[in-house]
Amino acid sequence: MEPSSIAAHRLWAKIEYDGTGFFGFQVQPGERTVQGELERALASLAGSPTRVVGAGRTDRGVHAEGQIVSFQVDWKHGLAELHRGLNAVLAPDVAVLELGPAPEGFHPRFSARSRTYRYTILNRPWPSPLCRRTAWHVAKELDAARMAEASRLLVGTQDMATFGRPPEGDREGNTVRTVLRAEWKEGGSLLTFYLEANAFLFRMVRSIVGMLALVGWKEISVGEFRAILEARDRSRVKRVAPAHGLCLVEVNYAASEGVTS
Amino acid sequence: MEPSSIAAHRLWAKIEYDGTGFFGFQVQPGERTVQGELERALASLAGSPTRVVGAGRTDRGVHAEGQIVSFQVDWKHGLAELHRGLNAVLAPDVAVLELGPAPEGFHPRFSARSRTYRYTILNRPWPSPLCRRTAWHVAKELDAARMAEASRLLVGTQDMATFGRPPEGDREGNTVRTVLRAEWKEGGSLLTFYLEANAFLFRMVRSIVGMLALVGWKEISVGEFRAILEARDRSRVKRVAPAHGLCLVEVNYAASEGVTS
Repeated sequence: MEPSSIAAHRLWAKIEYDGTGFFGFQVQPGERTVQGELERALASLAGSPTRVVGAGRTDRGVHAEGQIVSFQVDWKHGLAELHRGLNAVLAPDVAVLELGPAPEGFHPRFSARSRTYRYTILNRPWPSPLCRRTAWHVAKELDAARMAEASRLLVGTQDMATFGRPPEGDREGNTVRTVLRAEWKEGGSLLTFYLEANAFLFRMVRSIVGMLALVGWKEISVGEFRAILEARDRSRVKRVAPAHGLCLVEVNYAASEGVTS
Repeated sequence: MEPSSIAAHRLWAKIEYDGTGFFGFQVQPGERTVQGELERALASLAGSPTRVVGAGRTDRGVHAEGQIVSFQVDWKHGLAELHRGLNAVLAPDVAVLELGPAPEGFHPRFSARSRTYRYTILNRPWPSPLCRRTAWHVAKELDAARMAEASRLLVGTQDMATFGRPPEGDREGNTVRTVLRAEWKEGGSLLTFYLEANAFLFRMVRSIVGMLALVGWKEISVGEFRAILEARDRSRVKRVAPAHGLCLVEVNYAASEGVTS
């Protein structure tokens, strides 16, 4: 929590949000967004407008436990006061979990080494009122072992064009991504998928999970999943999992950045 | 799912609900309740009013994953159709997880051998948007080992008058209860308390958790907690944990009842 007093410094923050009530992370005219809510809170405390940049531009309805943002702010008091003040003025569906001075040249998106998303499926006959905002309810039985087998094909560096387009503003349009982890965990009727990659394409996790569900339902084989992956053709994605099962859990930076999320 | 066709039979059901939007389980004039929502759904399907009886009359804001209810219903079709129909007409914050014919003489409350409640505390500096409806956010650090030690004093048969009054309608007013399990589990910043007893007093779990928090904050010792328990005096309860951390997870019946919840 040093320096104890700051002025017009660039800061980083780790953010949690319930995406249910937001039209995604990124500011959009006339819509309630996470970025807009953070900018509103900062402006109300600092008295001047500021721009918030996020590591992942999560889609409408997607949650985050570890979104990383940075912003510049005029603030005469300590960091602890700003942290407390932000959580006091933010709506209850967003919270600042950590706050610190941003390292020189730090950019939440460009400095990130990898991101981890979690996708939660509730696989049982009837929906769950308590999980209805955070898990995709799948009534038809899924074969978790088949899904795990298909998921292992994702690990490594390859062209993921089948599973999404590059985010807007990426002029290079490169669709090669390195997947570091693609792992399912089972607990009762919950199936939880962890996908870590250096970077993601637009709707990549939801497209992968939707197609893995087809594998789990035995509508396509693991070999067909491999062929679809290797086709580099977005039209092969017949099923995209819904947004509310998805959560950005972690963004990783080089230790030298001093940002521990 | 037998018999496949029923008429004016008594049924039991296992119910899950998100208590956030309800004024408790039990019907109250002018308020939205779980019982009222179930009775509305049954009446809309069967065309005639029916009364739903629950195993636990959970308080306003309390959740359930395994509430057991019974009711009589005029229904000309199969049980599977009734089950599907109920989940189709119920609001998304209630769901019927299991449905079957009630054994002869079955009563959800009087036939129950024990109930298990879970209480969830989020113990970290800042609140969690994603857990805000299901966990009590406690910013001040709790000593989990001290709380576990105090909890062990609850196990066994004893007068629990300190922790609540008998439910309304209990003319005997007996406050002796048998606690079968009082166990804390830790996972990250979540502290989860499981309390199983033959029966509960009004606000018993919340009163116990509130006083255990005082132990965890080192405001009272384990010895003082024991003295408060043994005092059989409700005025000694200085802290009652909030409703939204509480969930009725299971109701147990004798195997001979044929109700597996």
